[in-house]
Amino acid sequence: MTDLQKLRQQNLETIFHPKSVAVVGTNKMKGTVPHDILDNILKADFNGIVYPVSPREASIKGIKAYKYVVDVPDDIDLAILVFPSSVCHMALEQCGQKGIKSAIIISAGFKEVGETGLQREQQLVEIARKYDMSLIGPNCLGVINTAPGTKLNASFAREMPETGNIGFLSQSGALCTAVLDYAQAKHIGFSKFISFGNKADISEIDLLYYLMDDDETKVILMYLEEISDGKALIRAAQQVIKKSGKPILVLKAGRTEEGASAAASHTGSLAGADEVCDAAFEQAGIIRCGNIEEMFNKAIAFAYQPAPRTEKVAIITNAGGPGVLTTDAAILNGLQLAKFSEETTKILKKALPATANINNPVDVIGDAKADRYVAAIQAAFDDEDVAGVFVILTPQSMTDIDTIAEEITKIAVGQTKPIYTSFMGEKDVASGIDILQKHKIPHYILPESMCSAFQAVYHFNEILKNKGHHAPELDDIQHDEAKKLMDKVMLNGRTFISEVETIDILKTYGLPVPQGNLASTVDEAVKIADEIGYPVVMKVVSDQVLHKSEVKGVELNIKSAQEVRDAYTRIHDNVSALMPDAKIKGIYVIRMITGSEEVILGIKRDPSFGPVLMFGLGGIYVEIFRDISFGVAPLSYEEARKMIEQTRAYRILKGSRGHSPRDIDKIVDALIRLGQLAVDYPQIQELDINPLFVMDQGQGSIIGDARMLLKN
Amino acid sequence: MTDLQKLRQQNLETIFHPKSVAVVGTNKMKGTVPHDILDNILKADFNGIVYPVSPREASIKGIKAYKYVVDVPDDIDLAILVFPSSVCHMALEQCGQKGIKSAIIISAGFKEVGETGLQREQQLVEIARKYDMSLIGPNCLGVINTAPGTKLNASFAREMPETGNIGFLSQSGALCTAVLDYAQAKHIGFSKFISFGNKADISEIDLLYYLMDDDETKVILMYLEEISDGKALIRAAQQVIKKSGKPILVLKAGRTEEGASAAASHTGSLAGADEVCDAAFEQAGIIRCGNIEEMFNKAIAFAYQPAPRTEKVAIITNAGGPGVLTTDAAILNGLQLAKFSEETTKILKKALPATANINNPVDVIGDAKADRYVAAIQAAFDDEDVAGVFVILTPQSMTDIDTIAEEITKIAVGQTKPIYTSFMGEKDVASGIDILQKHKIPHYILPESMCSAFQAVYHFNEILKNKGHHAPELDDIQHDEAKKLMDKVMLNGRTFISEVETIDILKTYGLPVPQGNLASTVDEAVKIADEIGYPVVMKVVSDQVLHKSEVKGVELNIKSAQEVRDAYTRIHDNVSALMPDAKIKGIYVIRMITGSEEVILGIKRDPSFGPVLMFGLGGIYVEIFRDISFGVAPLSYEEARKMIEQTRAYRILKGSRGHSPRDIDKIVDALIRLGQLAVDYPQIQELDINPLFVMDQGQGSIIGDARMLLKN
Repeated sequence: MTDLQKLRQQNLETIFHPKSVAVVGTNKMKGTVPHDILDNILKADFNGIVYPVSPREASIKGIKAYKYVVDVPDDIDLAILVFPSSVCHMALEQCGQKGIKSAIIISAGFKEVGETGLQREQQLVEIARKYDMSLIGPNCLGVINTAPGTKLNASFAREMPETGNIGFLSQSGALCTAVLDYAQAKHIGFSKFISFGNKADISEIDLLYYLMDDDETKVILMYLEEISDGKALIRAAQQVIKKSGKPILVLKAGRTEEGASAAASHTGSLAGADEVCDAAFEQAGIIRCGNIEEMFNKAIAFAYQPAPRTEKVAIITNAGGPGVLTTDAAILNGLQLAKFSEETTKILKKALPATANINNPVDVIGDAKADRYVAAIQAAFDDEDVAGVFVILTPQSMTDIDTIAEEITKIAVGQTKPIYTSFMGEKDVASGIDILQKHKIPHYILPESMCSAFQAVYHFNEILKNKGHHAPELDDIQHDEAKKLMDKVMLNGRTFISEVETIDILKTYGLPVPQGNLASTVDEAVKIADEIGYPVVMKVVSDQVLHKSEVKGVELNIKSAQEVRDAYTRIHDNVSALMPDAKIKGIYVIRMITGSEEVILGIKRDPSFGPVLMFGLGGIYVEIFRDISFGVAPLSYEEARKMIEQTRAYRILKGSRGHSPRDIDKIVDALIRLGQLAVDYPQIQELDINPLFVMDQGQGSIIGDARMLLKN
Repeated sequence: MTDLQKLRQQNLETIFHPKSVAVVGTNKMKGTVPHDILDNILKADFNGIVYPVSPREASIKGIKAYKYVVDVPDDIDLAILVFPSSVCHMALEQCGQKGIKSAIIISAGFKEVGETGLQREQQLVEIARKYDMSLIGPNCLGVINTAPGTKLNASFAREMPETGNIGFLSQSGALCTAVLDYAQAKHIGFSKFISFGNKADISEIDLLYYLMDDDETKVILMYLEEISDGKALIRAAQQVIKKSGKPILVLKAGRTEEGASAAASHTGSLAGADEVCDAAFEQAGIIRCGNIEEMFNKAIAFAYQPAPRTEKVAIITNAGGPGVLTTDAAILNGLQLAKFSEETTKILKKALPATANINNPVDVIGDAKADRYVAAIQAAFDDEDVAGVFVILTPQSMTDIDTIAEEITKIAVGQTKPIYTSFMGEKDVASGIDILQKHKIPHYILPESMCSAFQAVYHFNEILKNKGHHAPELDDIQHDEAKKLMDKVMLNGRTFISEVETIDILKTYGLPVPQGNLASTVDEAVKIADEIGYPVVMKVVSDQVLHKSEVKGVELNIKSAQEVRDAYTRIHDNVSALMPDAKIKGIYVIRMITGSEEVILGIKRDPSFGPVLMFGLGGIYVEIFRDISFGVAPLSYEEARKMIEQTRAYRILKGSRGHSPRDIDKIVDALIRLGQLAVDYPQIQELDINPLFVMDQGQGSIIGDARMLLKN
């Protein structure tokens, strides 16, 4: 952690737990932000002291007001700035003079409005640096801490949320208002609620580190429109998850190009490829959500209930149809139906009527009252094979909805297995759902959401068990030689680096380069071919030739010295005829590989996540099926392996129906080495190994062709 | 339509519009079904006369009761039976004697409980046949008709739904209770609401035909757990859609094997492959939904608003973040953002503050009140390029939620373009949402749902425009020859039919069979090869050999007479050695095809949809990528083409990057012919053409291998 980051952590403490707060720029006009913020702090019963600062008023809401913040006679921990953007810097300067270390700048009119705004924002940051201050915002809704010892609502939200163990971070203030309204209706409580706006100083990264150690926060949610430093975000997330075991759920806008461009016009930010973002999040253990509802559906499962040990669930329903729909949803989300023991079956048979279905999904039948639900739920909890219980209810004429809800809240107490519910309908079931939500029993409108939340918690805990992978130390890299070669290709501002030079560099990183060499004469070509053995492949080498086949500069399956001689002449003639300006450096003669699988490995550079590795099966698979995977470099052994396993091509590589298994370990090794190269040389903009020939298991792999693009 | 179906249509008229109803088996016990049904009829202000029939009571709820239905002095249109299942048949017999033509049998305890129940159910059907009666049920919630002239709530639902233009059919009664409760909260009204239970007599097919001509119904929704007659359902749906233009939305449970098995134990039904169901629904124009919420999200779009002309939408929001999320959702659902005209931009610039975003998505900014929304919505409606308007609202401190909702309901009146809304949050936005829902403005919690509903309406209307495809008449089929060959292979109860015989049959249907013939001697083999030209392929023909390669019974690329002789002997030796019991009928010598694409065509038989065609690219594509498509036979030209187009392999066939386009028309033709064969010969259980060699465009296709399985 840098000194600046340490300072922010320290100052965040006063942002969340200030003893005294100044609202700088407040006024008496109800329904305006400057007034409402002060009002909200007072209404929330803040445990410290509030000082209104207003150039024009002697008192506001019966509280003595000060003209300037420097006029306040006491120490102030936190300033909340609600002045217009044009004068904010003056107010902040005074805050600095007064020795205030933290400020929340609510005001809009900064980076998001263009150049003038950006300058104003930079001015604020300069002032903050001068006084060792830390800033939240500008252009945000504010900060809320529900902790009973603090009770700070330093925001212009309509209402203070309930206390809870979810921490929420948002780049968008407006989205916060929707989230708070949504959460209020569902009794979802928050520990901290932070709208960080333009993140001129304190960013989501600082906040992540803060929430890592915050005892009141069990689950972290985040809404992002743009990821300025993807690598830092990944690092922070990995550390938070590893150290605290807290899940991080992220809703990231801008999935599509159009969305990203709308986000850019809204936040002035640049977006990387969304599939890289997906891959990076997965590597970090971040749970990416598609919308607010999905985020909270998963959040309450994490926040309210124990994690399941396995993926086996019991379904208890009072209607067959919804039982079937839930079964479908469970299977489609990767869950399994638990198989009841004889004991459980016996208990259910005794407790339920003859027409009930005592197998999983258990149907307690339409006229069931609470007693049957309780009996079935308890039996499910007690069954060895059951890792979690799903309760489904339809509001039939005899159903005592509220009583069943209450009994569920009671039976859930002290269980080590999770219980989730879905009361289907909306109007008559509303009071029952309210009882469940008040008692922190996760409730879902759709069985799908219930199942996918269960799966998310299970999956996260599995990851948690296996965390702690690191990119391996590669001690056989010839760093000096690599540097020499890289320095050479970077000379003269070249951007396209052809096969032979690329392969030489890859060799220093221990990648499996082909047997062969560059021939400048026909005799040299024959000598090389004789040495490495036939058949061989011959290819033209020229800085001007980007696509060798297009100039007929490649010949395959050359079987004798005479054929080498013929091919040598033919390639020269072809290239000279088709591309007269090309300067031919020589002919590359390599051993021909057959009977292997062809895969593609690549390095790309993402604007926010940096060097990214790509893997896919060669040929039309990548083009037509888009069967490719990504991983942020450097890669651990497990991450590299996962990149391969998550493609459908993996089933071909591991050997399916009549195909022998291929040397996957060698692909893993190549990916790791390529990742290290990408990290060591940020100048590499793009690198493709296409194909890498992969032999049968234990037989290794060999590069077939490679090329590199440098930044210019 | 059969006479029985016509009778049902006639009797459905009295089920929905009875002048007099007898509730047979009712009683005075509140909270029981027999009582609640009578109570519901009375509470709903039924426009006709109700006759309670109860063996024990002289009057119920102040109304004179009759001991038996035959005692009622007046004519009765509809009987509702609520007696226990064991005595239902006696009551129904009396209904028949009384001349009642329609009955709703609410009682459970029939097919769903096993053999005894099934017998009871059959007994009911026999009685119905005897008296030309029609039955709904048994084991159902009942029937509701909200039409003001009728107002019949012949169900034990908790409440009568609002009047509306959605017709709802359900196999599950319990699900109905959830649906009614859901709809009630959202002011979703129904025209007819029918729980048809075990469908012993009247089925979803009869009800579909009825709703086709029902003026009060604009949209048809259906919940199914099992499809007993898939072909009939498809036929009915096609007719309804073609004749009435009404969309049919279906929620079908049992997507997974586990779900289907849960459904089977619940309804005693058998399920086919879910992907076949998907394909069949798509062919019929049925919109398959994944859950209740999705079904209603789409239903209200159809029911409340005009259909969009194009896929171009305008998004109006008061918050940037949600605007981005909605843009993402739109693009991911296949929609586009409309491009505003200069005129529109000018209007927006004038109406909105300088900080607003006047491009699509339009951001009217957080402090917007109704006036800005109205101006932006009107400008969007008036823009040529906009086909529909999405309004997004977040509840910020200045947002006048209810007024905005009211203004939206006003501005929507008389528009020819649809308007959908999403007020994000839950508590504070509730009253605004209620205003929208009361005024039939579609409201969605998630932008995703909004966009997918819009897409569904657009897509359905596109289909509607292009409907009316029929399987073409194939006038070149040699029916007599085909019958002769089929009769021959069906002799002796054989099930596996080998290559040569299968190909002979395919030839009579005009499929492109290979040049070649069966050789019984080595000289014959040479003669055949000489005639068709080299290279040839030679394969063993034997009823015992199912996999020719496994016994080394196939040789490729045979280039001369001598090679034919060698191969002939080798194949005989191999097969004799590896499978001594195999009786070799001869060696099949065919022309070898190179430079083509290999595809797979097949016939399968689905338990509910009958003959189904399968298409996929050959080799590992089908295995690894599951890139296959299905279609129910017979196929129209368009349907066959769509089967090909919906695979990803289509991109390979139509020619991508360096690959020439293939003869897709010939695959279409082969699929159509295969479909006709499947329809003509229900004995064919399975047929595979694997591969079909497809040459370049205009060059045709040729069967590479084929085999057939007959029913035994």
